[in-house]
Amino acid sequence: MSSTYGTLFKISTFGESHGPAIGVVIDGCPAGLVFDTDFIQNELDRRKPGQSRITTQRREADEFDVLSGVFEGKTQGTPIALVIRNTDQRSKDYGHIAEQFRPSHADYTYQTKYGSRDYRGGGRSSARETAARVAAGAVAKLLLAQQGVQIQAYVSQVGSLKLDKPYTELNLAQTEDNAVRCPDPETAEQMFQYIDETRKKGDSIGGIVDCVVTGVPVGWGEPVFDKLHAELGKAMLSINAVKGFEYGSGFAGVALFGSEHNDEFYTDEEGRVRTRTNKSGGIQGGISNGEAIYFRTAFKPVATIMQDQNSVDIHGQPATVSGKGRHDPCVVPRAVPIVEAMAALVLVDMYLRNKVAQL
Amino acid sequence: MSSTYGTLFKISTFGESHGPAIGVVIDGCPAGLVFDTDFIQNELDRRKPGQSRITTQRREADEFDVLSGVFEGKTQGTPIALVIRNTDQRSKDYGHIAEQFRPSHADYTYQTKYGSRDYRGGGRSSARETAARVAAGAVAKLLLAQQGVQIQAYVSQVGSLKLDKPYTELNLAQTEDNAVRCPDPETAEQMFQYIDETRKKGDSIGGIVDCVVTGVPVGWGEPVFDKLHAELGKAMLSINAVKGFEYGSGFAGVALFGSEHNDEFYTDEEGRVRTRTNKSGGIQGGISNGEAIYFRTAFKPVATIMQDQNSVDIHGQPATVSGKGRHDPCVVPRAVPIVEAMAALVLVDMYLRNKVAQL
Amino acid sequence: MSSTYGTLFKISTFGESHGPAIGVVIDGCPAGLVFDTDFIQNELDRRKPGQSRITTQRREADEFDVLSGVFEGKTQGTPIALVIRNTDQRSKDYGHIAEQFRPSHADYTYQTKYGSRDYRGGGRSSARETAARVAAGAVAKLLLAQQGVQIQAYVSQVGSLKLDKPYTELNLAQTEDNAVRCPDPETAEQMFQYIDETRKKGDSIGGIVDCVVTGVPVGWGEPVFDKLHAELGKAMLSINAVKGFEYGSGFAGVALFGSEHNDEFYTDEEGRVRTRTNKSGGIQGGISNGEAIYFRTAFKPVATIMQDQNSVDIHGQPATVSGKGRHDPCVVPRAVPIVEAMAALVLVDMYLRNKVAQL
Amino acid sequence: MSSTYGTLFKISTFGESHGPAIGVVIDGCPAGLVFDTDFIQNELDRRKPGQSRITTQRREADEFDVLSGVFEGKTQGTPIALVIRNTDQRSKDYGHIAEQFRPSHADYTYQTKYGSRDYRGGGRSSARETAARVAAGAVAKLLLAQQGVQIQAYVSQVGSLKLDKPYTELNLAQTEDNAVRCPDPETAEQMFQYIDETRKKGDSIGGIVDCVVTGVPVGWGEPVFDKLHAELGKAMLSINAVKGFEYGSGFAGVALFGSEHNDEFYTDEEGRVRTRTNKSGGIQGGISNGEAIYFRTAFKPVATIMQDQNSVDIHGQPATVSGKGRHDPCVVPRAVPIVEAMAALVLVDMYLRNKVAQL
Repeated sequence: MSSTYGTLFKISTFGESHGPAIGVVIDGCPAGLVFDTDFIQNELDRRKPGQSRITTQRREADEFDVLSGVFEGKTQGTPIALVIRNTDQRSKDYGHIAEQFRPSHADYTYQTKYGSRDYRGGGRSSARETAARVAAGAVAKLLLAQQGVQIQAYVSQVGSLKLDKPYTELNLAQTEDNAVRCPDPETAEQMFQYIDETRKKGDSIGGIVDCVVTGVPVGWGEPVFDKLHAELGKAMLSINAVKGFEYGSGFAGVALFGSEHNDEFYTDEEGRVRTRTNKSGGIQGGISNGEAIYFRTAFKPVATIMQDQNSVDIHGQPATVSGKGRHDPCVVPRAVPIVEAMAALVLVDMYLRNKVAQL
Repeated sequence: MSSTYGTLFKISTFGESHGPAIGVVIDGCPAGLVFDTDFIQNELDRRKPGQSRITTQRREADEFDVLSGVFEGKTQGTPIALVIRNTDQRSKDYGHIAEQFRPSHADYTYQTKYGSRDYRGGGRSSARETAARVAAGAVAKLLLAQQGVQIQAYVSQVGSLKLDKPYTELNLAQTEDNAVRCPDPETAEQMFQYIDETRKKGDSIGGIVDCVVTGVPVGWGEPVFDKLHAELGKAMLSINAVKGFEYGSGFAGVALFGSEHNDEFYTDEEGRVRTRTNKSGGIQGGISNGEAIYFRTAFKPVATIMQDQNSVDIHGQPATVSGKGRHDPCVVPRAVPIVEAMAALVLVDMYLRNKVAQL
Repeated sequence: MSSTYGTLFKISTFGESHGPAIGVVIDGCPAGLVFDTDFIQNELDRRKPGQSRITTQRREADEFDVLSGVFEGKTQGTPIALVIRNTDQRSKDYGHIAEQFRPSHADYTYQTKYGSRDYRGGGRSSARETAARVAAGAVAKLLLAQQGVQIQAYVSQVGSLKLDKPYTELNLAQTEDNAVRCPDPETAEQMFQYIDETRKKGDSIGGIVDCVVTGVPVGWGEPVFDKLHAELGKAMLSINAVKGFEYGSGFAGVALFGSEHNDEFYTDEEGRVRTRTNKSGGIQGGISNGEAIYFRTAFKPVATIMQDQNSVDIHGQPATVSGKGRHDPCVVPRAVPIVEAMAALVLVDMYLRNKVAQL
Repeated sequence: MSSTYGTLFKISTFGESHGPAIGVVIDGCPAGLVFDTDFIQNELDRRKPGQSRITTQRREADEFDVLSGVFEGKTQGTPIALVIRNTDQRSKDYGHIAEQFRPSHADYTYQTKYGSRDYRGGGRSSARETAARVAAGAVAKLLLAQQGVQIQAYVSQVGSLKLDKPYTELNLAQTEDNAVRCPDPETAEQMFQYIDETRKKGDSIGGIVDCVVTGVPVGWGEPVFDKLHAELGKAMLSINAVKGFEYGSGFAGVALFGSEHNDEFYTDEEGRVRTRTNKSGGIQGGISNGEAIYFRTAFKPVATIMQDQNSVDIHGQPATVSGKGRHDPCVVPRAVPIVEAMAALVLVDMYLRNKVAQL
């Protein structure tokens, strides 16, 4: 199982939903970074359950311990181990699915691949694993902030409810003002009501998270296989429930002519080479071109619903999976910090790799 | 520059568009595979330029030499080096862009990242690099065929012209019957005309390639970071001109409720666990579930057009990039074998990695 | 800092000597292995300090917690996180060296490379890090035992005191009967006295650990760069204080003629191809040949001594480093389980990699 | 089969002794390096066969082609592919061993691991593979030379004939003046005669290569698993016929007390922190300390001898392997540039990795 990510800023996550703890080891964080624990905790708080009535009611403080790698407030260049204890594991909630395969969950594939599975809350396949990513991503964000890079994700769609404005017309500073994390207050309110109604029906609904990265200089990203957008795509698709990724003009771009799509270069007043449009999404040839990087990530409706469903058990016999447990009716509000964290992990790795591109 | 891909079936590509040769070294191909050179050449022929009037008129036979790794017709477990000579490099065609940045090309980002660039035909950023991928992918396909895996890609959209049928209603065996590689003859003819008109206007247009993989058993794919669809996504996004990737229900899936989206399990007559629907796209929790895997890849219009464009030169001064050189007005017909090759490389790696999942 | 090791059985260690904890995450352990916690604790006990008067008097129970990866007594194929709390960190013992570079320690190189260092007990450069390796190695040993592989190391030299017998003439079962871990009781007693005298003088002394591995089938090891003995060599040289490695005939083999050194093949009564001699040390062309694998690892005298030494401080000014702290006067008795652990980590990785050598 | 080496300066070698060609792809060489083809060819010439009557009489010009990665005389940051054609492959010389296992060769282990083998001249297990390493190492040397690093290896022992002087008392500039590559002319002459007599007897003999690296600044090397000396050790042990490695005080260091072994620090007239002795071999805690790095590598007698030997065939039946083919009676003279090349590959990787150690 590959639970490691990164070439130079390498993370290795561990932990099951209902085991003693989850966590991450970061190997390759440069020495000398001021380790802002409040910031890291704040990022974890943005992801943690129980933030409003439209998120799961599991109660986890998601407080983290630093086991290594930090001394006198700074990173030492040594591995940073962060551990988050699981405190609200009601394993008995899951006894009923020990022998059943929940539809569109990872139960059946894990069981077949590994010969067994920790069925309590999805075990390793639980979205709880993403807390470890958010912790590591927060460290990456601290490093990127020093380089002037800012990452801002937000919810742009819930079900069929779309925020039909480009990011340039939005006030992204308002994103955290509401429980949905949609920067447009009116749309946010509609989305909240829609999610809440879905929750009451015992159902779930999908959504889309947009992400904008500013301040990346020209040159980040490795051409050929590890193109910047290819790594961003992999990182996003590695988040639970993600079904699609696009950047820049994305899927809509296929309907354009080259003469419409090409981003004309010019030199701005400060002598910087810029593009007049940004259909490239800030990336050309897999390498950042200094413009804003933006991309979109599609999340399916979460598979856990509060309704009875037909399925089979581990013996292949028909079974009815009943709707129990705690779950998010819509994953995107809590996915916002996860998207940002994964973007940060990709970018920090590319930042470091770029340091050795030239003599 | 990361020109290597894969964990166990590891490939390393090399070569610039107008250098002496391009090629690939495959390290990690198991011993004992019958090395079918005709098949590999055929795959290269599917990708090579000059196949019809809607593809670039560069003339390359794209014949390959096997420098190592094969003995008495079989792979030896040793590195397989495949080399394709460049024969039709009209470097003089590119003198005019030595000091210009072509809009939406990789000229500017390469120049800045590396301090210089091989400007002849895009150098390393040329789509010519994908011939090496197709050669390696053909070897991967040979291995997968032994496991009963079939990969079939096709063009589903050109500009706004869509093939609005799911793959289950198409006869994919007809894909190679036309120059566009669209399995529906009528749509193919429309697409051909559309591309040809675009070509005559000196413009380019985007498109979408769909891909279907059958015969993958349950268990391929590594959960967490290297999920099967995350690796597929990265692989597709690493192809030149790709802007988006989705699998299974994809972006459209976000508008569904969980009760609509979940794939119900049942046991078929042969005792196999199956799903009644396949919104999961054959992958659950990042692991194949035995159903068909399908995904879609969006390609932008290629940046090279036969029209004058405003830009800047390497000194930041305004410049007019004139439309010269040979190019594809629409990349998707030739992208079909590339998509298949990259899918094969992902799958063969996952096949090998799965061999060590259990004791 | 590379604190990760392994290709398929991948470990990532963390922790400083005087931080809250040390530990390891194992990513890639196959599912289905019975997780014998008593065995793992026993291996840690073999390494832990305070075992006799010739080892450091730091008191550490070295008890470990399993944070993930094990469910109902078996590995799940998911990352296994093992954590060992530090309980006897007398940081004040180290205040005096915060600004001094101890001779032949890693103080100066860490400080220069990283710009700072956790000076308490050597921080990350402390041999305490090896406890994490022993824990991970114990898991590897469990897996190897299932394959019939046994690893047995022992002390063969302390200072100039040599055990001048090949391993074939020793009763390795007696190794653990004495504090030195030398299988010859008389030599062991001499070594013990010698180490104890060295300790009383406030000095330290080097030694050699031999290791014998039996039960490895033909075929483990990757030729070219990752030859089995090259990986064993790297693994041993990565242990603190190691200065040399040799396998099979080793350095002495250079004085032999090929006609003396070559190992003649024959077929034994069971039809197995064997060699009559074993100067190859069980490895030919980097691949195990079915014979016993044996190698030797040289450890320098530990740098910490109870005597005043001339040095410089972090400002480059002359300084006297006084002999304080707790230390081993000779590292080899406690190095025996470390050598075994590292050998186990190499072998288990090669075992898994060999599973994909052929179709 | 792992034929790749390196983390940032990554090489992938390929080729069998009697296939069409051998070669290497370097992925990760920074852009902007002046690519000195004469220097690279000279390094290959130092390794090539047929240099004197004490080396193999196979005739290979070992001229290389640059297939990619270099433009207008400089590296481009893109993969550099170097290919060396095999021109003097007398495959018929090897027909007699197609079904035999030569003692102490890799025939048996390859055959068992991979199910077949290219028996012509050892196929992939041939020392011919090292030509690709020397080519890649020459590029690494060019880069290191820019950093002021010099690598100088020499023969210090042949059979029992030892050059009993530390490198500090030798004039290493004389190393290339004789066919043995021993910097002491008298000892060189004795070694030459000894090797020549061994050759006439149809036998082979082992030897030791010492290597000294100067100009490495403080800070290269990654502590824990990828210690500088651990990587050097792996690199040396990955060369054919190597049986042992030691650095600094090496095996002899075990007999010293800590008070004798420790290298006292002082500040020199230029304000640099130095050590008065260098038992550490220029490396402390796995990181270079600015002093000269030196190490020794032991080579066994080559397995090919011109005498009949008892063995078995691929069916396990007794067989007599007769002494045919062309071979080196002693490998160390030609091993000198190989040792240097591998050292260069290790060091250049550590140089690049060190660039990201601090913010």
